[in-house]
Amino acid sequence: MQRYFVDQECWNDNTLYVNGEDTHHIVRVMRMREGDNLVAIHPEKGPALCKITKVAQDDVHCCVVKWMEEDRELPVRVTIVASLGKGDKLEQIVQKGTELGASVFIPYQADRSVAKWDNKKAVKKIERLQKISKEASEQSERTVVPEVQSVHSLHQLLEMKTHYDHCFFGYADEARQQKSESLSESFQPLKRGQTVLVAFGPEGGFSEGEVEKLSNEGFKSIRLGPRILRMETAPLYFLSSLSYMLEEF
Amino acid sequence: MQRYFVDQECWNDNTLYVNGEDTHHIVRVMRMREGDNLVAIHPEKGPALCKITKVAQDDVHCCVVKWMEEDRELPVRVTIVASLGKGDKLEQIVQKGTELGASVFIPYQADRSVAKWDNKKAVKKIERLQKISKEASEQSERTVVPEVQSVHSLHQLLEMKTHYDHCFFGYADEARQQKSESLSESFQPLKRGQTVLVAFGPEGGFSEGEVEKLSNEGFKSIRLGPRILRMETAPLYFLSSLSYMLEEF
Repeated sequence: MQRYFVDQECWNDNTLYVNGEDTHHIVRVMRMREGDNLVAIHPEKGPALCKITKVAQDDVHCCVVKWMEEDRELPVRVTIVASLGKGDKLEQIVQKGTELGASVFIPYQADRSVAKWDNKKAVKKIERLQKISKEASEQSERTVVPEVQSVHSLHQLLEMKTHYDHCFFGYADEARQQKSESLSESFQPLKRGQTVLVAFGPEGGFSEGEVEKLSNEGFKSIRLGPRILRMETAPLYFLSSLSYMLEEF
Repeated sequence: MQRYFVDQECWNDNTLYVNGEDTHHIVRVMRMREGDNLVAIHPEKGPALCKITKVAQDDVHCCVVKWMEEDRELPVRVTIVASLGKGDKLEQIVQKGTELGASVFIPYQADRSVAKWDNKKAVKKIERLQKISKEASEQSERTVVPEVQSVHSLHQLLEMKTHYDHCFFGYADEARQQKSESLSESFQPLKRGQTVLVAFGPEGGFSEGEVEKLSNEGFKSIRLGPRILRMETAPLYFLSSLSYMLEEF
């Protein structure tokens, strides 16, 4: 069933209205009418099965049929730090990373990032990534929309260390070494409810300077299987494996 | 180091030549010269570190410096059956599925496939997918290029059952059920060296008829975490989890 994230101010106990682009989607794209059902997600109370009571010009009014109990969120909060890449790589990471359960995305201006975002471009890009994350949350039936934060520098990234229980970074050379620590060994200390930050390099990988600084600050380098993954595939391997370990084991 | 898959007929003991598009890549894109090193992969003997001995008009001659011992292939042979989808979804599945270790890709004309390929289109599409698979194999440092087969019907798909040790299909409703079998339980009977076939539906999922026929023929439906994944994300979750279980555990 179609799902919509509805801001707190649109709710009044067991009634709510949907406005903005979602109205367009409900009325024009889905062609829903009075009496039809949809799932509306309250920012705190979570998802509710709702019935449309009135379709007006600019908004759609609904009432709650029943509050739903769902457990769709990864049991650890994962922040994906994604280096700026060429083309639509960040869009792919945010879209598919949202489906796979990430909680936060942070674009990172890496030493070897070929793509550069000036301030004006960054604002637009982040707005677009936030929209992709909302749509992917609806599509994948999540109960939370991941947040897309502003572009971070290495200095800012290193400072985040203190806010997380575990910090990792993807490092292609780990795949080339037979004897490095396996990913499951790296996952060993993770406990439900904890926070994880994981940083991925751009097309050319992290620079030696970045690897040194990340390592010195206690970020742990991880293996993602024995093959060399593209920058946009690595976060998906990480999230899939984490979901497999915590949700499918 | 740059890698190239070189056909059997281009090898003569410890010397070889590279021709066609790879010559262009070596000379124009990578700007390599006599004395430079590259990795050439023999279809049977695997990868060898090679030195360029001569750059000619249409081909590049090399000699083997040493044969390399690498173990980059998933320990089970996985065939991904991917339903025809809109846009570049199959390209994404083949590119990233190759990085993640799949052995064979089979496009499938599903009941709900919005995209249709006529014979002429199919030939071109498969040629393009095969090229993507070769490039992704080189990039991810694999020693085998996955094969892209012709478009299969449901009848052909069901008949393949006898050639595989395990047959699965992705089914979104499994994600919605709290009590279905976990993916690790489905993976339990898998042993190294075995063959696995896994089929994924198009945007709208498999039809009821398809689910019934697949189930009746002994294809097992699998969960891929509790969230609903897009058609192009589901195979990546499957392959990542399988790699995690067999290569990183």
